[in-house]
Amino acid sequence: MDIEVICTGDEVLTGKIINSNFSYITQKLEDFGLSVKRGVTVGDDREELLRAFQLAGDRADVVIVNGGLGPTVDDLSQEIAAQAAGVELELNEDWLHRMREYFSARGRTMPENNSKQAMLPKGAEMVDNPIGTACGFGVSIGKAVFYFTPGVPRELHRMLEHELIPRMLKKSGIQEVIVLKRFHSYGLGESHVDQLLSGLVEMVPDGSLKLGFRAHYPQLETKLTIRAASMDEARAKLAPVEDELRSRLGNFILAEDDETLEGVLRELLLKDQASLAVVEDFTGGQIAGRLAPLPDAGEFLLRGTVAPSPRSKMDIFAVDGENTLGDWEFGIGLGELLAQRSREGAGATYGLAALCQLSEGDGRIAGNMNSNIVVAIASREGIVHRRSRLAGNRDWIRLGTVELALDCLRRHLQGLPIQEKTDFERPPPR
Amino acid sequence: MDIEVICTGDEVLTGKIINSNFSYITQKLEDFGLSVKRGVTVGDDREELLRAFQLAGDRADVVIVNGGLGPTVDDLSQEIAAQAAGVELELNEDWLHRMREYFSARGRTMPENNSKQAMLPKGAEMVDNPIGTACGFGVSIGKAVFYFTPGVPRELHRMLEHELIPRMLKKSGIQEVIVLKRFHSYGLGESHVDQLLSGLVEMVPDGSLKLGFRAHYPQLETKLTIRAASMDEARAKLAPVEDELRSRLGNFILAEDDETLEGVLRELLLKDQASLAVVEDFTGGQIAGRLAPLPDAGEFLLRGTVAPSPRSKMDIFAVDGENTLGDWEFGIGLGELLAQRSREGAGATYGLAALCQLSEGDGRIAGNMNSNIVVAIASREGIVHRRSRLAGNRDWIRLGTVELALDCLRRHLQGLPIQEKTDFERPPPR
Repeated sequence: MDIEVICTGDEVLTGKIINSNFSYITQKLEDFGLSVKRGVTVGDDREELLRAFQLAGDRADVVIVNGGLGPTVDDLSQEIAAQAAGVELELNEDWLHRMREYFSARGRTMPENNSKQAMLPKGAEMVDNPIGTACGFGVSIGKAVFYFTPGVPRELHRMLEHELIPRMLKKSGIQEVIVLKRFHSYGLGESHVDQLLSGLVEMVPDGSLKLGFRAHYPQLETKLTIRAASMDEARAKLAPVEDELRSRLGNFILAEDDETLEGVLRELLLKDQASLAVVEDFTGGQIAGRLAPLPDAGEFLLRGTVAPSPRSKMDIFAVDGENTLGDWEFGIGLGELLAQRSREGAGATYGLAALCQLSEGDGRIAGNMNSNIVVAIASREGIVHRRSRLAGNRDWIRLGTVELALDCLRRHLQGLPIQEKTDFERPPPR
Repeated sequence: MDIEVICTGDEVLTGKIINSNFSYITQKLEDFGLSVKRGVTVGDDREELLRAFQLAGDRADVVIVNGGLGPTVDDLSQEIAAQAAGVELELNEDWLHRMREYFSARGRTMPENNSKQAMLPKGAEMVDNPIGTACGFGVSIGKAVFYFTPGVPRELHRMLEHELIPRMLKKSGIQEVIVLKRFHSYGLGESHVDQLLSGLVEMVPDGSLKLGFRAHYPQLETKLTIRAASMDEARAKLAPVEDELRSRLGNFILAEDDETLEGVLRELLLKDQASLAVVEDFTGGQIAGRLAPLPDAGEFLLRGTVAPSPRSKMDIFAVDGENTLGDWEFGIGLGELLAQRSREGAGATYGLAALCQLSEGDGRIAGNMNSNIVVAIASREGIVHRRSRLAGNRDWIRLGTVELALDCLRRHLQGLPIQEKTDFERPPPR
């Protein structure tokens, strides 16, 4: 099945907004075994839109058009769809009614120009959008079925997942259920995981299992997609594969499906009625900043401290005006002391210190630096630490340090070793 | 001039990476008065690439192709370019030599498969890439000139700005100099600024001035582009417009061109040898986190404190174990006290407190919340405060609070009022 995606709108064409709808659409379809052949982007321009629709109608089987369903004069999708299909626009009374209800539920009267959104090409199939005023629709142009979708991301997401993917699977002859299972890890590169999982796909001999990756540094998402005749069969086929994957990636798996690292930490802490104090320097609040926005953060995050300089560390952790941190040499000792002092000062169950000292890179790549990282976790039972080095630009090192610190805490709370080497690290300094 | 952009690669087509190169290219060209007509995305697929090149060669005048110049087997751009142009590939000895030098400067030997990167379509014009091994080139296909560019963003950026835009301006007949001037503001929406600047474009009667916007909440970028016969003329035409724009947007302009809000704060503090202590709750370290990664941050950022809950605020700012913060009611008084205590505790010139209390939204839009925000700045001269309310989802409120706090500090350091209402705010609570 030849699938094409057409994104419309001057904002997308001129780069005022980055086209994340396109990557969302193609990725989501890929998860269901539907591969997009090509993408096209055109502005709010009658001639270009018409040509793009005609061309796609000549060469594709299914075309997803995104954007241009709004109430303003530069929203042209319905008009040009009708022109390309060789039909008139006609008012869809059902949708007009739905829009009036939508506005009145929000205590407002529908502005007159919104009625434009209920004008669909004659003979078009309405595609539901229960969370917005842009009506989706399907219409034939040339040899292809075109589906028109709203530009607002959450409306697009809902329509694609609930309405369009089932229709496309049906059209493609894929009758089966498809289940997607995701694992999030930190510390292993994509090619390393690919290698660790060799032979995994062959565990399902009928070829219905697919393995995929999505790297967004510092995390990696590993995706399993399985097809089956029923949900029960899908789950039965997937279960042993999931177990095998968990055993191969082991402690590196930090969350599954919609879970996040910070969400996992929140649950671990709340479950034990435990609390945390964080102290950080180069990461400047970004470690605490991952936890503080979570619901009930006040219950488990007692304190965050940002102490960029040696001087500020000394001042903050002074006792009766005295320096309590010894000779100030950067290293494990300082990290452990800060974790401990921070824990004591806040009366928290755990103290987490993440220190990072930058140094010049080897000069091979402009802007690249080296780093010396110490993560320490203090609790009533004692203190553990983790030393690491990352090389890269400042952002790369900062992101890596934040993730390393949070993941060390996750491992510690789950009773796992925090010393396992990651693929991103350089050998520790002597 | 009909300009088309073709982005290649399975990673882009399947949405594994978001195509930010496309928006970069179209936006940068737009800045120079070169409008892109359409964009096409295809995977690493010989047939689709060939069709896309042929189609673009039939309809466009200039085509920019991005990606597919790497050393691996799925990098197909040179091969398909030669096929579409009806010529053979031939080894470019100059580029091969350049690559060998590139590797030896990095203490490495060039892997053999990199020599593929020096194979260009016969008769192609080499386009320099001094920072990578992917050789750019120009070649005619159909009626269009095609320019092939690397997928690595910084290599693409350099090649587009230094090599391709001058060639395209020459081809388009635009002989003039184009100057781009950018202003960054916080607190005014795009349509409001558009309205405030009405008549500005007409200040240059020859039509050579263009006004544009790029909104990336919470900041707005306002762009002036001017064309002239020479740089001197461009600057002379632009100067009175810049002055007028500065006087109309006034205190809302926080930075110009490549400056950033945090960079401006850094300079203001360093210039006066002044220092800062920050205390924040809901923003969880993100205010300090904007400043801590800057060079010499240790000199001006003495301390950051994250105190999510009332209890943690009380503990942190206790004196001899006593609650020094009064009755704890959220409000201006608490913000002022925290700013002051934070300043005193750190021995800093300024104390900045940013507190944000979330409350349920009005229920009209799922996930939307209200907020009560207090920003206070303490110095030797006394304390000033700013009260605000934002409505939106948690991320929206957090981003807005961070920006409001940093911008209040900027205004205070520049001697400007911190009370000016922004477009994003709701009326303050009674």
